[in-house]
Amino acid sequence: MKEEHLHCDFIFGNDPEQRLGNKTRLCKHDGRFRWSGVKREEYKSSGNDWAGIVRQTLIGNSGESARFHLRYFEIEPGGRSSFEMHRHEHVVVVIRGKGICVAGKKKLRMKFLDTLYIEPEMPHQLQNPYDEPFGFFCIVNARRDKPKLLSQRD
Amino acid sequence: MKEEHLHCDFIFGNDPEQRLGNKTRLCKHDGRFRWSGVKREEYKSSGNDWAGIVRQTLIGNSGESARFHLRYFEIEPGGRSSFEMHRHEHVVVVIRGKGICVAGKKKLRMKFLDTLYIEPEMPHQLQNPYDEPFGFFCIVNARRDKPKLLSQRD
Repeated sequence: MKEEHLHCDFIFGNDPEQRLGNKTRLCKHDGRFRWSGVKREEYKSSGNDWAGIVRQTLIGNSGESARFHLRYFEIEPGGRSSFEMHRHEHVVVVIRGKGICVAGKKKLRMKFLDTLYIEPEMPHQLQNPYDEPFGFFCIVNARRDKPKLLSQRD
Repeated sequence: MKEEHLHCDFIFGNDPEQRLGNKTRLCKHDGRFRWSGVKREEYKSSGNDWAGIVRQTLIGNSGESARFHLRYFEIEPGGRSSFEMHRHEHVVVVIRGKGICVAGKKKLRMKFLDTLYIEPEMPHQLQNPYDEPFGFFCIVNARRDKPKLLSQRD
């Protein structure tokens, strides 16, 4: 069996129409929190309730049949996500730096590999008050409701 | 707002009947690939087609409503998972050491934060031929079919 070092756009078969889609593929990490074949995108296309946050969707933008999506978000020092709530759950796993998650009335400090389950309808916000980037995976259901924005409390 | 350092068995509310369940909770990482409140378990309860692999279920054993489960598997040097296939998808994210994933006729080398999508019905096996532990998250649908064991090819 041949041992190969393959990249994100690697799939089984050579049909160019099926370059991504629901195909086995490996997204290689470049050592700097970027993955081969994965775009760096804005967190949201509008709004001013968030700042300094970008998104990479590793699983979920290519017609995958899995019932969940895997995204990586990175918040620069001083940045924050929207303060919001929704019916779907979040699972947050820190992989870079450290940060804070406001969840209801609590402020939870999070660091490397800390894993947070956020229950449905829990108001929450991710914040980076520190001096290095705060990066985390966020796993969500593939089918999910739209977040409801909440007013800022701090 | 109070800043707190909370643990996996932290939930909102004080009802002891609801210590886990579908509640917001933080599983703190101890710096050595163990999480507060998460048990270290056998990979499978039977079979001799696998070796040197343990499981920790971070999300999925506590009545969570999310449509996915998050597990951490660790394979010791020389160990391997079953060679198997199933209809459900796998997403594998390496967080410790390095290893190999056999997927169909390919052998994919994987290291820190490399992310693999394994499509439905793809025969696969995770192996650790190296001299340090190989640890990875594996995300799956909450509702999924039972794996079918395949004969070993190497």
